[in-house]
Amino acid sequence: MKGRLTIPTDLDVVPETLELIERWGADAVRDADGTEFPAQLRDIDAKIYKTYYTTRKDNEWAKANPDEVQQSYIMTAFHTAGEQELQIRLMEGISPELMRPNTRDDIKRWWEVVDRTTGQPLDPAEWRYDGESGEVVIAAPTAYHEYTVSFLAYLIWDPVHMYNAVVNDWKDFEHQITFDVRQPKTHAWSLERLRTFIKQNPHVDVIRFTTFFHQFTLVFDELKREKYVDWYGYSSSVSPYILEQFEEEVGYKFRPEFIIDQGYYNNQYRIPSKEFQDFQAFQRRQVTALAREMTDICHEAGVEAMMFLGDHWIGMEPFTPEFQNAGVDAVVGSVGNGSTLRLISDIEGCKYTEGRFLPYFFPDSFYEGADPVIEAKENWVTARRAILRKPIDRIGYGGYLKLAYQFPKFVEYVESVANEFRELYANVAGTTPFTIKTVAVLNSWGKMRAWGNHMVHHALYQKQNYSYAGLIEALSGAPFDVRFISFDDVKADASVLDDIDVIINVGDADTAHTGGFRWEDPQISTTIRKFIMNGGGFIGVGEPSAHQYQGRFFQLAAALGVEKETGFTLNYDKYNWNECRDHFILEDVEGEVDFGEGKKSVFALDGAQVLVQRDKEVQLATNSYGNGRAVYISGLPYSAENSRLLYRAILWAASSESELHKWFSSNVNVEVHAYPQNGKYCAVNNTYKPQSTTIYLDDGSSFGIDMQANEIRWYEI
Amino acid sequence: MKGRLTIPTDLDVVPETLELIERWGADAVRDADGTEFPAQLRDIDAKIYKTYYTTRKDNEWAKANPDEVQQSYIMTAFHTAGEQELQIRLMEGISPELMRPNTRDDIKRWWEVVDRTTGQPLDPAEWRYDGESGEVVIAAPTAYHEYTVSFLAYLIWDPVHMYNAVVNDWKDFEHQITFDVRQPKTHAWSLERLRTFIKQNPHVDVIRFTTFFHQFTLVFDELKREKYVDWYGYSSSVSPYILEQFEEEVGYKFRPEFIIDQGYYNNQYRIPSKEFQDFQAFQRRQVTALAREMTDICHEAGVEAMMFLGDHWIGMEPFTPEFQNAGVDAVVGSVGNGSTLRLISDIEGCKYTEGRFLPYFFPDSFYEGADPVIEAKENWVTARRAILRKPIDRIGYGGYLKLAYQFPKFVEYVESVANEFRELYANVAGTTPFTIKTVAVLNSWGKMRAWGNHMVHHALYQKQNYSYAGLIEALSGAPFDVRFISFDDVKADASVLDDIDVIINVGDADTAHTGGFRWEDPQISTTIRKFIMNGGGFIGVGEPSAHQYQGRFFQLAAALGVEKETGFTLNYDKYNWNECRDHFILEDVEGEVDFGEGKKSVFALDGAQVLVQRDKEVQLATNSYGNGRAVYISGLPYSAENSRLLYRAILWAASSESELHKWFSSNVNVEVHAYPQNGKYCAVNNTYKPQSTTIYLDDGSSFGIDMQANEIRWYEI
Repeated sequence: MKGRLTIPTDLDVVPETLELIERWGADAVRDADGTEFPAQLRDIDAKIYKTYYTTRKDNEWAKANPDEVQQSYIMTAFHTAGEQELQIRLMEGISPELMRPNTRDDIKRWWEVVDRTTGQPLDPAEWRYDGESGEVVIAAPTAYHEYTVSFLAYLIWDPVHMYNAVVNDWKDFEHQITFDVRQPKTHAWSLERLRTFIKQNPHVDVIRFTTFFHQFTLVFDELKREKYVDWYGYSSSVSPYILEQFEEEVGYKFRPEFIIDQGYYNNQYRIPSKEFQDFQAFQRRQVTALAREMTDICHEAGVEAMMFLGDHWIGMEPFTPEFQNAGVDAVVGSVGNGSTLRLISDIEGCKYTEGRFLPYFFPDSFYEGADPVIEAKENWVTARRAILRKPIDRIGYGGYLKLAYQFPKFVEYVESVANEFRELYANVAGTTPFTIKTVAVLNSWGKMRAWGNHMVHHALYQKQNYSYAGLIEALSGAPFDVRFISFDDVKADASVLDDIDVIINVGDADTAHTGGFRWEDPQISTTIRKFIMNGGGFIGVGEPSAHQYQGRFFQLAAALGVEKETGFTLNYDKYNWNECRDHFILEDVEGEVDFGEGKKSVFALDGAQVLVQRDKEVQLATNSYGNGRAVYISGLPYSAENSRLLYRAILWAASSESELHKWFSSNVNVEVHAYPQNGKYCAVNNTYKPQSTTIYLDDGSSFGIDMQANEIRWYEI
Repeated sequence: MKGRLTIPTDLDVVPETLELIERWGADAVRDADGTEFPAQLRDIDAKIYKTYYTTRKDNEWAKANPDEVQQSYIMTAFHTAGEQELQIRLMEGISPELMRPNTRDDIKRWWEVVDRTTGQPLDPAEWRYDGESGEVVIAAPTAYHEYTVSFLAYLIWDPVHMYNAVVNDWKDFEHQITFDVRQPKTHAWSLERLRTFIKQNPHVDVIRFTTFFHQFTLVFDELKREKYVDWYGYSSSVSPYILEQFEEEVGYKFRPEFIIDQGYYNNQYRIPSKEFQDFQAFQRRQVTALAREMTDICHEAGVEAMMFLGDHWIGMEPFTPEFQNAGVDAVVGSVGNGSTLRLISDIEGCKYTEGRFLPYFFPDSFYEGADPVIEAKENWVTARRAILRKPIDRIGYGGYLKLAYQFPKFVEYVESVANEFRELYANVAGTTPFTIKTVAVLNSWGKMRAWGNHMVHHALYQKQNYSYAGLIEALSGAPFDVRFISFDDVKADASVLDDIDVIINVGDADTAHTGGFRWEDPQISTTIRKFIMNGGGFIGVGEPSAHQYQGRFFQLAAALGVEKETGFTLNYDKYNWNECRDHFILEDVEGEVDFGEGKKSVFALDGAQVLVQRDKEVQLATNSYGNGRAVYISGLPYSAENSRLLYRAILWAASSESELHKWFSSNVNVEVHAYPQNGKYCAVNNTYKPQSTTIYLDDGSSFGIDMQANEIRWYEI
């Protein structure tokens, strides 16, 4: 029982490292930002990872080449013009330590002043920039119109370095300046720098690219508070140098607005514009080609290239076809829950994936009197659901080994996790687990944003999205073949739905998640209607298919059997409020369902079956449509109970209630996963308490078991 | 103390009528549907009203002229096409006792089959009507598209007659068929019929037109349940005869969709289309001209014409310029609250207005053991607030006098109300009460729908609108000069805002109440911004100015200091959550404010002041914008506390906090109204309990008083 585990080390923990390698069965050792790899361990019988920062940690170069510092597009706040000249100070609300406006390139070409009242950009002759005051001045604005300035700024402090420095209150250090590996001088030098790095570190087996090329969007304000964050943001992957290439490639003129997007920066709630999709595609091609140059250098030197999923992955989003050619050997990422686990483990086009588990061995978790086992258990049990569906290939930890070593119970727990993971991996890896149904999450992004739907910044909680992200979390550990498809996919080739049992559309109205105006496209709306009427299932959560058009707010109202009251249908009397509480979908519910934020003012149409309404607002309803079925759910935060509700909703929507008792646990806190190819199945207790349940096999047989807290138990089929 | 009061009578209550005329001081006596005027009272010293039904109660005529029965446009439900022929049964979900499709006129011209997936009407050659099955058949629909049929139907049972019959479970009676006074034969005959009626009733002083010409929209389903109701609906004021005139007048081709409006029938939440506005204007001109023919007949015969506000007032909406020429002497309407009182009392262009008070003398309120005084008190106290601002000229009651007579306490209470009303009227009528500010409610309808904003059917409660209607109710009895202005008004002439202190915009996003896409018009948005920046006040309730456009959901976000999170700004960190609870606006609040339904996901921008937020959702906030001020309120159901909150919000928005103690009561349950022209003021206790308060005059002086329940107390200035 050894392997598949990476642990951190440092100069002061050589014996502890050796002991824990043995005890935990680790086969890889890593350094980290703030730790040093000890020379004594260079010849150890384990892979050695070393972090590498492509875009920073060389201020000498950055200072010598200020024209190749990384740049970001950013928009000022809205400013209302009075009847005189209007001044807009560019850096208002933005940390001057983070950014500096780029006045080196032609600002009249690369900046844009937009009249937000008309939506039109100003003629460059209508404004000037006062470098002294840092203001754009519009001499004769239209009175009482609102204006914004979109401008390019240099990232004079790497945002992640800044974040670490601010959060940890670092003193006496130099701000690390970013540089742009896409630009000619830095490009040439970066390849050389990587070669040198590899030569200087002959003991290293794996180059862990902690940064690749472009930082996701992360902006701080004048108080150094986070101002804007988008884990998927492309606004810091720009420069006139590459934008000219973009223009050439797409054949139309670039506008800053393509990136600025009214100040919404094409975040994942926005239905993507053609221009932004073009830009993303351009970036993916360019960035993965550049990555390939670097991975080739690694491979020539006999070392592996590992990408850290996050921080600098723009253009390297792994669920895109271009990523397959980047030559990345491995991807490592932080595991916050089941969704983030699948975000890593579902990646194709690399040799292996690795999950970094919580807690980090940092003083905020490892202090006197703390019990880090609690966080470790929660993290492991949450992730394990997803691992059982699609395992990562390795697990690992980060931080200061010295700290963890001082907590014997934690050391013991990690040992059990490592062993459990290895057993699990042996039973699961390479096989296809039993899936009861194939479900497709339909939104504007499709596979590109698989498992990351509704994520603003990794697994960050937000009041507005936990009721939607919870559904994705439920899916991450459930026995379904889960696809992520886009409206573009559906439009390009309807056969993408051929082997789908149930389509899921989840989110708020007029967002990328539910599709907004895309439902006005008859090709899209009829393809989905046809799918359902011909026997398919559809589950809508929140405001599915919602976009005001032709007498409907929910464009699939007829299928869903529900509609939202936005004021336009107040004149219609509504009589369908009686709850059917003994429905198949509700059979495992005890007490009341937690719909999270829920939705207001949803009502049922004639013929639909209301399962739950609260104060005359429908929370859960079912409907038949042609030969198919649809389920409406107002929101679904993650819990074992809601995961079961979704499971039943999917079976019901697929007209497959009779298949319920296949690899099934009567107790919602226990799940069953089967691996017919390997002849194994397991029962897994997802709670921190003992559980009793009845386990159903796929042959109609069943048996009762009592399980310990967190237990996983393996059986032969 | 006599006069200004109308009471019902009947054959069996002659002595009681005489007694109550004396005791209550009544000066008018009326009959009603179901009562008969006693011959003995014909020479009484009181005006005699008699109900008259222009459009029904003559089935002989209706049956002889089936081509001139009234018609309605109605849309079927949505039907999804499969891969074969699609049948749509027209009358599905519609009571066949109420309507019958009009196949007499050219259905290919007057009906419309719409592909709701594309939004396009079908070529008439693509469908046919099967009279036998009552179905429209589309032989070759586009598979999986949704279709609706808009068709004309005869109103073969007057909807109000049907309502009365169903609600009261009438047996053995004939359905009263409607006839259309606009059409040539019925028109000529109706004038004659009216002349005859007047001749046959020489004792009558006032013809009370209970129905004029067009029924508001009221549809029943196959179970005779109300299916659709719109007190302002124009869909039953149509016929090929008048639509051809409409076409001629406007110069473009009529489409059923102008009336059908995707099935929303241009209800008051819909931002009106140009075509619907044209149609309304056409109807107003035609209908008021026709009314003038009838009122002329009345005047020639020496009788007055009184219009009942409701049932058949389409084209006769009294807040329109055309109404002024209709020759109506009086308008009578039912008083449900302060808003409905002002809906009557603010009418110009007639000699007097009259309010019908609750309860009706019907068995549901007057049964053994009942205390009808309770409802009467509530009704009176609620309406009194509004009467003190703008009195109706008369009050009155309806129903069976015999019933009321049996309740001595009720008889006594009505006596006190009548006396109180007469005193009040003497003190108030003809003067302009003191108004502390001029406020304008800004929406898509303006004056036309004054006081009726958010009303679907008179004062009917709805979960989706009570939090908005409550603000109108508060205004109905508050010391403001209240205007109702439309976006068209603002666009036509910005000087409409010149004497306004505070603009109010209240309702949900993208509705007529808040304006929706009208905010994309720079002329409108800049006029409002200019108004505020130059010192004006703005109060937004719910989702004011909300329409997604150019980086904003609330188009006046900069002025309001708040914005709604719709997903597009989740990436922005939000720090402004600290509540300022000692704000001027909150000073009279005890405990927590009731925002009614409130709104989710509203957050404050930098610089705004949050007064109340709940679970990080802003409910009340203030902001400065140029020299002006804005207040955001998430919702405001009517209560004395909220009325005071609104009062303070208006003063604050108008930068007039110092004017608070002018004709003011420290206790929110007591209000003060002053009539400087008459040298009077009063304090009025709006509750059913004694109240103590301090009354502030306008000279800085004040005094304390103790008031009895409901008391109104008059003073000389």
